Amino acid sequence: MRALNFTFKRRITYANNRSLFSKPLIQKFSSSSRTYDAFSPLDTFPRRHNGSSDSDVKRMFDVVGVKDMEDLASKTVPANILSKRPLALEDGLTEHELLIRLKKVASKNKIYKSYIGMGYADTIVPPVILRNILESPGWYTQYTPYQPEISQGRLESLLNFQTMVTNLTGMNVANASLLDEGTAAAEAMLIAYSAGKQKQHTFFVDEKCHPQTIACLQTRAECFKIKVIVGNALKHDFDQYGKDLSGILVQYPATDGTINDYTELANKIHSLGGKIICATDLLALTLLIPPGEWGADVAIGNSQRFGVPLGYGGPHAAFFACKEPLVRRIPGRLVGVSRDPSGIKAYRLSLQTREQHIRREKATSNICTAQALLANMAAMYGVYHGPEGLKAIAKRIHDFTNTLAGDIKRHGYTIKTDHFFDTLNVHIEGGSEAIYKKALNAGINLRKVDDFTIGITLDETVTKDDLVNLIRVFAKDPTYIPSLVDVEKSNIPEQFIRTSSFMQHQVFNSYHSETEMLRYIYHLQSKDLSLAHSMISLGSCTMKLNATTEMIPVTWPEFANIHPFAPIDQAEGYKILIQELEHDLAEITGFDGISLQPNSGAQGEYAGLRVIGAYHKSRGDEKRDICLIPDSAHGTNPASAAVSGMSVLNVKCNNGDLDMKDLEEKASKYKDRLAAFMVTYPSTFGVFENGVLEACEIIHNYGGQVYMDGANMNAQIGLCKPADIGADVCHLNLHKTFCIPHGGGGPGVGPIGVKSHLMPFLPGHPVIKTGGDKGIGPVSAAPFGSPNILPISWAYIKMMGNEGLKSATHYALLNANYMARRLSGHYKILYTNQNGMCAHEFIVDIRPFATSADIRAIDVAKRLQDYGFHSPTMSWPVSNTLMIEPTESESKAELDRFCDAMIAIREEIREIELGKQPKGDNILTNAPHTIQTLVKPTWDKAYTREQAAFPIKYLRERKFWPTVGRLDDTYGDRNLICTCPPMEDYLD
Amino acid sequence: MRALNFTFKRRITYANNRSLFSKPLIQKFSSSSRTYDAFSPLDTFPRRHNGSSDSDVKRMFDVVGVKDMEDLASKTVPANILSKRPLALEDGLTEHELLIRLKKVASKNKIYKSYIGMGYADTIVPPVILRNILESPGWYTQYTPYQPEISQGRLESLLNFQTMVTNLTGMNVANASLLDEGTAAAEAMLIAYSAGKQKQHTFFVDEKCHPQTIACLQTRAECFKIKVIVGNALKHDFDQYGKDLSGILVQYPATDGTINDYTELANKIHSLGGKIICATDLLALTLLIPPGEWGADVAIGNSQRFGVPLGYGGPHAAFFACKEPLVRRIPGRLVGVSRDPSGIKAYRLSLQTREQHIRREKATSNICTAQALLANMAAMYGVYHGPEGLKAIAKRIHDFTNTLAGDIKRHGYTIKTDHFFDTLNVHIEGGSEAIYKKALNAGINLRKVDDFTIGITLDETVTKDDLVNLIRVFAKDPTYIPSLVDVEKSNIPEQFIRTSSFMQHQVFNSYHSETEMLRYIYHLQSKDLSLAHSMISLGSCTMKLNATTEMIPVTWPEFANIHPFAPIDQAEGYKILIQELEHDLAEITGFDGISLQPNSGAQGEYAGLRVIGAYHKSRGDEKRDICLIPDSAHGTNPASAAVSGMSVLNVKCNNGDLDMKDLEEKASKYKDRLAAFMVTYPSTFGVFENGVLEACEIIHNYGGQVYMDGANMNAQIGLCKPADIGADVCHLNLHKTFCIPHGGGGPGVGPIGVKSHLMPFLPGHPVIKTGGDKGIGPVSAAPFGSPNILPISWAYIKMMGNEGLKSATHYALLNANYMARRLSGHYKILYTNQNGMCAHEFIVDIRPFATSADIRAIDVAKRLQDYGFHSPTMSWPVSNTLMIEPTESESKAELDRFCDAMIAIREEIREIELGKQPKGDNILTNAPHTIQTLVKPTWDKAYTREQAAFPIKYLRERKFWPTVGRLDDTYGDRNLICTCPPMEDYLD
Repeated sequence: MRALNFTFKRRITYANNRSLFSKPLIQKFSSSSRTYDAFSPLDTFPRRHNGSSDSDVKRMFDVVGVKDMEDLASKTVPANILSKRPLALEDGLTEHELLIRLKKVASKNKIYKSYIGMGYADTIVPPVILRNILESPGWYTQYTPYQPEISQGRLESLLNFQTMVTNLTGMNVANASLLDEGTAAAEAMLIAYSAGKQKQHTFFVDEKCHPQTIACLQTRAECFKIKVIVGNALKHDFDQYGKDLSGILVQYPATDGTINDYTELANKIHSLGGKIICATDLLALTLLIPPGEWGADVAIGNSQRFGVPLGYGGPHAAFFACKEPLVRRIPGRLVGVSRDPSGIKAYRLSLQTREQHIRREKATSNICTAQALLANMAAMYGVYHGPEGLKAIAKRIHDFTNTLAGDIKRHGYTIKTDHFFDTLNVHIEGGSEAIYKKALNAGINLRKVDDFTIGITLDETVTKDDLVNLIRVFAKDPTYIPSLVDVEKSNIPEQFIRTSSFMQHQVFNSYHSETEMLRYIYHLQSKDLSLAHSMISLGSCTMKLNATTEMIPVTWPEFANIHPFAPIDQAEGYKILIQELEHDLAEITGFDGISLQPNSGAQGEYAGLRVIGAYHKSRGDEKRDICLIPDSAHGTNPASAAVSGMSVLNVKCNNGDLDMKDLEEKASKYKDRLAAFMVTYPSTFGVFENGVLEACEIIHNYGGQVYMDGANMNAQIGLCKPADIGADVCHLNLHKTFCIPHGGGGPGVGPIGVKSHLMPFLPGHPVIKTGGDKGIGPVSAAPFGSPNILPISWAYIKMMGNEGLKSATHYALLNANYMARRLSGHYKILYTNQNGMCAHEFIVDIRPFATSADIRAIDVAKRLQDYGFHSPTMSWPVSNTLMIEPTESESKAELDRFCDAMIAIREEIREIELGKQPKGDNILTNAPHTIQTLVKPTWDKAYTREQAAFPIKYLRERKFWPTVGRLDDTYGDRNLICTCPPMEDYLD
Repeated sequence: MRALNFTFKRRITYANNRSLFSKPLIQKFSSSSRTYDAFSPLDTFPRRHNGSSDSDVKRMFDVVGVKDMEDLASKTVPANILSKRPLALEDGLTEHELLIRLKKVASKNKIYKSYIGMGYADTIVPPVILRNILESPGWYTQYTPYQPEISQGRLESLLNFQTMVTNLTGMNVANASLLDEGTAAAEAMLIAYSAGKQKQHTFFVDEKCHPQTIACLQTRAECFKIKVIVGNALKHDFDQYGKDLSGILVQYPATDGTINDYTELANKIHSLGGKIICATDLLALTLLIPPGEWGADVAIGNSQRFGVPLGYGGPHAAFFACKEPLVRRIPGRLVGVSRDPSGIKAYRLSLQTREQHIRREKATSNICTAQALLANMAAMYGVYHGPEGLKAIAKRIHDFTNTLAGDIKRHGYTIKTDHFFDTLNVHIEGGSEAIYKKALNAGINLRKVDDFTIGITLDETVTKDDLVNLIRVFAKDPTYIPSLVDVEKSNIPEQFIRTSSFMQHQVFNSYHSETEMLRYIYHLQSKDLSLAHSMISLGSCTMKLNATTEMIPVTWPEFANIHPFAPIDQAEGYKILIQELEHDLAEITGFDGISLQPNSGAQGEYAGLRVIGAYHKSRGDEKRDICLIPDSAHGTNPASAAVSGMSVLNVKCNNGDLDMKDLEEKASKYKDRLAAFMVTYPSTFGVFENGVLEACEIIHNYGGQVYMDGANMNAQIGLCKPADIGADVCHLNLHKTFCIPHGGGGPGVGPIGVKSHLMPFLPGHPVIKTGGDKGIGPVSAAPFGSPNILPISWAYIKMMGNEGLKSATHYALLNANYMARRLSGHYKILYTNQNGMCAHEFIVDIRPFATSADIRAIDVAKRLQDYGFHSPTMSWPVSNTLMIEPTESESKAELDRFCDAMIAIREEIREIELGKQPKGDNILTNAPHTIQTLVKPTWDKAYTREQAAFPIKYLRERKFWPTVGRLDDTYGDRNLICTCPPMEDYLD
């Protein structure tokens, strides 16, 4: 009798082993690891996150010509920046362990009933939307819909959002969401500022706006030298500003709940040449005359209460709507209607030329990320409830508020708010603290407005029992039970009552049963390619796995149901989460301090540059205003510098490398004005440049600060650190590198890391203390940005652990180099280092085919759709190229499938070159091909229907179909339609 | 200043109002309701569950020719059975309230660490499978894959299940799951019983089988007069039975953990002409020689530990595998490989002629529901881990068990189990109770085998800490800390060690990263039509909304992670849930007692008939063995009667009505033998028969009991009650009427309700006390069947409330009658009552087209796929017809879309009748059309590609594509392949 002859290895390498019995590939990994003995659990995460199996990795090593991962890294990353010691992070937890640990953290959050208001209200997320959008990889793993032919589903949903917002605000056009209400207000201010022929430097803000909105405005105004005056708009003398008044911001209803009539004010401001911006509440607008009807030019606000969890402050979709004259200045993304070659109506992103990555340093906005996923949720909430349902919800809340006011009055308090929708300010003669505390003891959060004022905001979750509990806080008799026989009827004066209809489009009046709603969601989803279908190899966008375990905690009530301004002792779980995440990010980047406030990479850039500015200023270096930026930088970089009040100077690049001579010359020439140098690393050309240390030194020598764009951080983790390289600040895209899903175009989280000398300047917040002692103002409305999705990145780091994170970088480098090698016989690969290695992405040159076949990058991109793939990044940073970033999560099988497609397309191009297919009417220029086109009776192409549809074998088993043909961009921009077109337009 | 002029109605009807401001349609509803005042919440559920809006309902009233719902009901349901009083149930909760209340109930369950074993082991459900299968409507709302062209996804997954089971057990073929291990053993026993030329009436069961398995066998054996002998198989003298031994059942490893060598035993039994049935554990078989290699003929077991939550006993997928000679006797569903007209390999359900609904009273099994959803989960678990991953899990568990044994021994206890996989029996000198209690105090459940024996079974969730806690239960020193430096190596003797490979197919060796797994799941899902796409109007199958709120609690850990044999005080939450559900079901049906044990409608029938048999026997009426069943009954009815030991006599039907004369004659003729009458109500012809009261009276007069088949209960709730009509027993299909999703072919729950005189006979259980004092044996392995999905039905009833439930019935009747009216100008509608009304379903006659156009029901069914619809029930209860049941959850828009499709198909038939399309080669006979066919270069049909693909306008916006052409049934059954074919077979 002999014992089983397979026994556990005493110490096994967990990170990269698909099979636990095979020999570890990356021996080094186990050296510093938690002792992985036979008692260790098996559901280790890195082998699920990284795409390829050990045996596939070996085959890839052979193709790339490296021995192992360490060899790969040493040939790819300059020796002088390669980290010597492993990351000092915890060992990786298993998925099972992670959920248990995070549940413990979550349970430290206390869920009180919050009546704080201030732009955030609790809401009932319809479960059909929760499960089938927020919890569905078919919705959350999508990329921004820049490829409209495979994105018609979410484009339709975002158009619903725009239509809903446009209707409710009474405006002509709305965008597809912004980051939050505070920054939306700032964007509006800048539009007012730049809309006139001359810049107008005075902007007035009504004092009854939410404090965080005012603070965000002030932060943003500084760099434009805009003078923000806060006061009572209804009593203010505006004539004093003459033509210098760009506009005013009012809140409607105001932060204290008051509904004011701003009609005369609007006339006055217009007569002075200013714009009226109205911060408002979509739900209130189902009952109230919309801003568009009383004269506002712009309406902004937060759509959170339309079925998006509070989430301790975000992510939520802010909205931005305006009147026709401002449409081409609207910030962020805008969905419009166009048509495909068959004349079929279809949706696309309109007016992209407005966007920051095109306008660069001429931009007045650096917005790129939106909040698509949350906008979709809000839109679906509108679709599910319809106009009547929304009105019923608003009416119930209002009547409850009125009932509450009545009962509170009966207890001898004074209601300070005359006319209100859902919010009361109550004067407390004896001081507000006692009531505030009494409420806390009853598990209730009120807003302590000042020493004698309590604010109360009701929402749709409030029940009769809640009302009773709330009223009892104000009762002197502890046994008091309000009778509440009836609700008190509306107190809204007739002059404010909305009479115009809204959301009459069929889409808001059809899907009110769960079955219909579910099918609508699934129908839209079926049109959209996401990571659930195939790789999305967008260079510089890092579309990696968003693991289920990372996503599960997002919808836990402990994380979802906390108000951002709840007392911090109720958010102990969030505090732990945030502190640990900050710690881990600091270790990964080498920085000393982290701010999680920025809601996108662009916001991170902005925050980082403002911190640099504040640092210089604190040293008396006020003149430092020049920002050096390489030609090849993301367009957002110069835009961010511009909105941070800096002047941008471009630095040349030669053959993919920074021109060090040009850098030195410019740094030297402007040594007194040099504020910052922005650099992306590895470079946007997909190479670890050797000169990076030197470049940072040059900048420091001339008194500048180095800002590193963290977009390519996925190539660095565990191998090198921005702070070690010389960066003073760096933003991270948690939605690229740290697994927060792209959500079809948002949410994003763009924290910044800084060295210790910059820590005092990290952004603060007017309501909840955060940031440095000399912190710049808030760059986001919520103190910690979008906390509800931070568990995703926290979980990713905890499950990967020190070794797993490094392994992901190894896999990312390997995958890119493997693909580059496979494609190099067929396409020219631009830029590699002296060892012939690219970083985690590489550029495929399409330029030669312009001459040879009249084919451009867009033709290859659209033809890739026929092969079931989303296009890589097109024409950036080099025009007429494709930049491919596979990420670590893709398997060799998928990489091969993609390479096979690219190679097959090269052969299709050859057919044109050989004259077998005519230029301008061939299988590439006619791509993508839809089923509707392919079943037409006649077929007069130089290729067959089958070649169009199934050019390669795997497509017969698995194919994703574009639902419309290639869209007509020019037509769409010329004939701008940004709300839902009538249904009959579709089917004809 | 005037107040808002819309105010809340003081009492509003909630059940059917889409708009809260419109006048209630069904005034009656508010009469007995909870006072729906302005304080009432708005997220009422019935308006989300029922499909149509108020205005649509009005239009439907006009078409049907009724005034309102009450008018509709009175014209449809016989006056003498219409209930006079409303259901005495709670008022409906909102979705929000429901989740809060159910969370409270759930939190009363206590989750201990369970080492009880007995066929149930805790498991780590891979989150990617949890979220994307168990929580995905794309998987759980599917119907059984009887329409293979739109079901290739789950058919592939079920084939994976079969392949995995076949490989692991070492058998030749496995089915696509059975209800549970106990009934799988019973099915196997009956195969052994009937496999020989002569029936063999002796069956031997090893005493070391799980007790619930033995009890299930005994229950089932009684009706076949099989003598079940329980003893020690290794020491038993089998020669004494001669040729009467049909077979034996052994457990491998046994319930006490022992691994026995049954090779010689198998030879012995085979030499006597008996079959060897082996109950086994798939995970153990990754290490042990499989039963197929040591001589077993059949292997059965539970696949639960492959990633399916414990769920207090179910649902889980049992498996059944056998050697080649028994393949055509295999019970349940069997997926096989066939081909479509283009020769493309495709999957389908094989050998359907074996199934009970075809064999009727000749059946030896009444199995119809399987556990498809759970089998899919288990298969995906196999796909995700692969053979090496499974082996690693098994090995770790085994080594842990060995380590545990070593440490327990060091504390002076005797391990009674020599060779084991994961289970130990420990002899406790001082008596087992003390250890058992000590463990409980430490939050640990052990198995108390007898007064001196403790059983311990480990599973994949056990950690080192768990081991430490477990060992400390056995330590006398309370401060003892085991060192656990190393695991002890395997103690499995070489003779048991598996050497054969398994799961070598590519599907088990490709999708090991989460990205790949997710895409595989989505890819399969994309091939399958489900309720997320369009209505599935299967007559008698009630495919209604499975609301998200109902589904959410299923995956709560409080419900998911309890062992079925945990002490009942740990299952307080389940107790409340079960009691309340039983109460509500009793009120709905009018019965006095409910048993939730049966896992399917067929099991319910079986349980009900056995209860009737026990009742007769208890009164000395032993001779009563005849069951009268109408011609039109579901095929399962006679099969259930047969397996309950009854003789079936058919009763005639005339023109859709029961032939009362025939009934009376037969009841009278067999008055001494009359046991039961089985009746479906409303009838299987879709009509509320007027004579039902009279029929029940006749049966009772002759001493029989009335069994009502509850398949059509969706037409009764709130309008009439089975018990009032005269039924003594009735089963309910919670998966039809009460919203448990069909899961692509299971799970099912088929509780029975009985009148008080039958309550003592309700089924019991050997481990957990349940059922009546004189209860029949268990009909399921778990005491309460499938508790994990009971929250769904509980939630449905609680959210609908008394009025909502009745409204659902109203809508169901309205929808069917509306469709019948719309189609009646185009097709003949069979059977309506004297007012021209059908019940909740109706039959469309296709027979005339056989002559006129050579078109049959199947052609219409397949053509419906081209229109994006799943076929209604085909050729039952009348050959060559379609039976349509829309359910209440479908909207008028969807009903119209379906009617438009049916009418368009009628016009297509007319083209054949007119000779415009040839018989046998037309748009119907060639249906369904796949994209692959449509893009072929040549097209020689009498219709265009576009007519094939887009015959109606709505399809251009929303179309579901069949992935293969019409399958060749004959070819598939002749060339039976029931495991995954090699990959290269697919793409050629």
